[in-house]
Amino acid sequence: MSDLLLRNIRPYAAEACDLLIRGGRIAGIGRFEPEPGMPVEDGGGAIAIPGLIDAHTHLDKTTWGMPWHVNNRRAVLRERIDFERENRTAIGIDPHRQSMRHAIGLAAHGATHIRSHVDIDPTHGLSLVDGVMETREKLAGIIDIEIVAFPQSGVMVMPGTVELLDAALAQGCEVLGGIDPCGIDRDPKGQLDALFALAVKHRKPIDIHLHEAGDLGAFTMELIFERIRANGMQGQVAISHAFALGMNDHLRTGQLIERIAELDIAILTTGAPSATVPSIMRLKQAGVRVGAGCDGIRDTWGPWGQPDMLDRARVVGMKNGLRQDHELEHVLHVVSQGGADVMRLEGYGLRQGDRADLTLLAGETLAHAVVEVAPRPLVVKGGRVTARQGRAVVDMP
Amino acid sequence: MSDLLLRNIRPYAAEACDLLIRGGRIAGIGRFEPEPGMPVEDGGGAIAIPGLIDAHTHLDKTTWGMPWHVNNRRAVLRERIDFERENRTAIGIDPHRQSMRHAIGLAAHGATHIRSHVDIDPTHGLSLVDGVMETREKLAGIIDIEIVAFPQSGVMVMPGTVELLDAALAQGCEVLGGIDPCGIDRDPKGQLDALFALAVKHRKPIDIHLHEAGDLGAFTMELIFERIRANGMQGQVAISHAFALGMNDHLRTGQLIERIAELDIAILTTGAPSATVPSIMRLKQAGVRVGAGCDGIRDTWGPWGQPDMLDRARVVGMKNGLRQDHELEHVLHVVSQGGADVMRLEGYGLRQGDRADLTLLAGETLAHAVVEVAPRPLVVKGGRVTARQGRAVVDMP
Repeated sequence: MSDLLLRNIRPYAAEACDLLIRGGRIAGIGRFEPEPGMPVEDGGGAIAIPGLIDAHTHLDKTTWGMPWHVNNRRAVLRERIDFERENRTAIGIDPHRQSMRHAIGLAAHGATHIRSHVDIDPTHGLSLVDGVMETREKLAGIIDIEIVAFPQSGVMVMPGTVELLDAALAQGCEVLGGIDPCGIDRDPKGQLDALFALAVKHRKPIDIHLHEAGDLGAFTMELIFERIRANGMQGQVAISHAFALGMNDHLRTGQLIERIAELDIAILTTGAPSATVPSIMRLKQAGVRVGAGCDGIRDTWGPWGQPDMLDRARVVGMKNGLRQDHELEHVLHVVSQGGADVMRLEGYGLRQGDRADLTLLAGETLAHAVVEVAPRPLVVKGGRVTARQGRAVVDMP
Repeated sequence: MSDLLLRNIRPYAAEACDLLIRGGRIAGIGRFEPEPGMPVEDGGGAIAIPGLIDAHTHLDKTTWGMPWHVNNRRAVLRERIDFERENRTAIGIDPHRQSMRHAIGLAAHGATHIRSHVDIDPTHGLSLVDGVMETREKLAGIIDIEIVAFPQSGVMVMPGTVELLDAALAQGCEVLGGIDPCGIDRDPKGQLDALFALAVKHRKPIDIHLHEAGDLGAFTMELIFERIRANGMQGQVAISHAFALGMNDHLRTGQLIERIAELDIAILTTGAPSATVPSIMRLKQAGVRVGAGCDGIRDTWGPWGQPDMLDRARVVGMKNGLRQDHELEHVLHVVSQGGADVMRLEGYGLRQGDRADLTLLAGETLAHAVVEVAPRPLVVKGGRVTARQGRAVVDMP
């Protein structure tokens, strides 16, 4: 944890000031003269916000930096899952090397925190988690990585998975994942009962992928609500994607959002352009914690995506039809503070005493910075410079 | 029209070869040695495709390169239109300077042709068209600009507009525009009868904005079909946006697409992320001509967009849920050959005899190039280099 004098920055696009950083925390905000031996950086009047947060990604999947992966397969969810599980090793998707590339890319573009789902299945056991954990150790001080033990291939349809999830939580995965209890597992009661039992046993939160759309996804959400109440897990569950909240039924969606707010469920969105997605403005009005993520980037599932949460803010903003400046500011909130709210990060922010995890943004205003998606001039993690002008201080493997 | 030897390029990602260009046309494809006095460029093995085409944009509207335009207004179509008409001059959106910036930006990113709608209304008369025509003259040899006389504020609700459109077509606008005969004009019969009468009088094609969604847009499409038949205008009408084709009724959409194919109507899409959009793969299967465009970029309507048709290909591809390589190749087709098909450009392509309008793309394959959206290494128009590494040879004003 470092000391740093960061001069001439505009916190949240406000008046220019300096940040005095001691021991990796913000010790002062105002005007300061350099002290002997203290590193100094000139922010050039750029906007400063706390570090961007990718709160929903898959570090173990990307082909980033590898030869182009040709995909001429059908876009069927179950087939994508099976293809990846059966071929990822042969394709050469090394979980450590690839998660390094992905995470360093995110850091280069201003992120300081990641929540990554990592596949766990009987074919690979916990080896993919091990690879990402190695990355987490190597990138300590560059970017924080929280790992979700993620049963990508299903829970009930993949015997042995419950035991693997149990072991993964014991070994240090912070969050328990899940996936489409109806669509993938064909047994919603089975998967959800198993997940909540594991979560209670390990006292870990849940973050469940829910691609199920319309009334099917709404049904699964209701099953989740029931189990949160029964287990007293209010405030400890997140639903990723939540495509059902994008269904064309205002009243039904409103009922679901009321329960989501009441049970303090967090929503993670990727702004999936070809799906029905939750309205981030409606969730804001309801007081729901909302974060965002890049999801998988350039993997066997699909080619799109960049390791850049400002690029993702653009995707989320365009998909949500947002145009006004205050709406663009909210998109920026979702890819930063929103992720911190979901992950319940301590000391996240730009107040005195907060951790010195921040990124500078190029732009006249916050709204301008969101649409400009220019290289981040400077990124700081724990008071240490981790990237300049879109390039991380560590090289990609 | 220039001579050029362009060496070591891969047409459509095929085997590397050279292009011999004489008098602005492709004179040979194969292996050639430099001739005395002939300029030579080394393509470095990059992919070559014919120039990108922005077949639906608004050159007269952007605030690109101006101070950030704060937008805290409601996103209501009629209000956006009226705000822009009443404030564009005071804001300083000079149609010539801004269309120069927009068009040069497109050229820098590999475009060689533009179809631009330009606003015509009683407040501004033809002054906005004049500004874009000045840009067209100045950028001759850099990028071709086709102008659509566009009644942005409505036709029947804006008395005097029919006469202005009549004058604009007489003065050199190549295409007649229109907009939401129900939604904006509240008089579909009135607007469409007026437009078709003007088109027949001037023997000009029509390209009509149709934001009307669902059954309303379908109704307007049927009115357009009737008038195409009555006036024998098969093959001479384009529908821009065509949001009704994105409605959630497979059979109804299929009926509309059948008529669109039969009447040889072209469709222009922007892949609008928050709207219902036509499926470009379904239109392809039906044999419909489909082009794409950036639409307005960073204007008083909204902040999004770049003057870059590869960036737009990404928006269209993600919105259409395309993931397979052959699908990505089709997106690239839509932003290049598709636009040429819509505009019926002579000599567009990479065959011997075609015009030497082309762009190089960075990437291993066509699909890779689409998702990479890297700076275009080299852009050539009529045999002359117009941009290198994302920078045009002419400066923005």
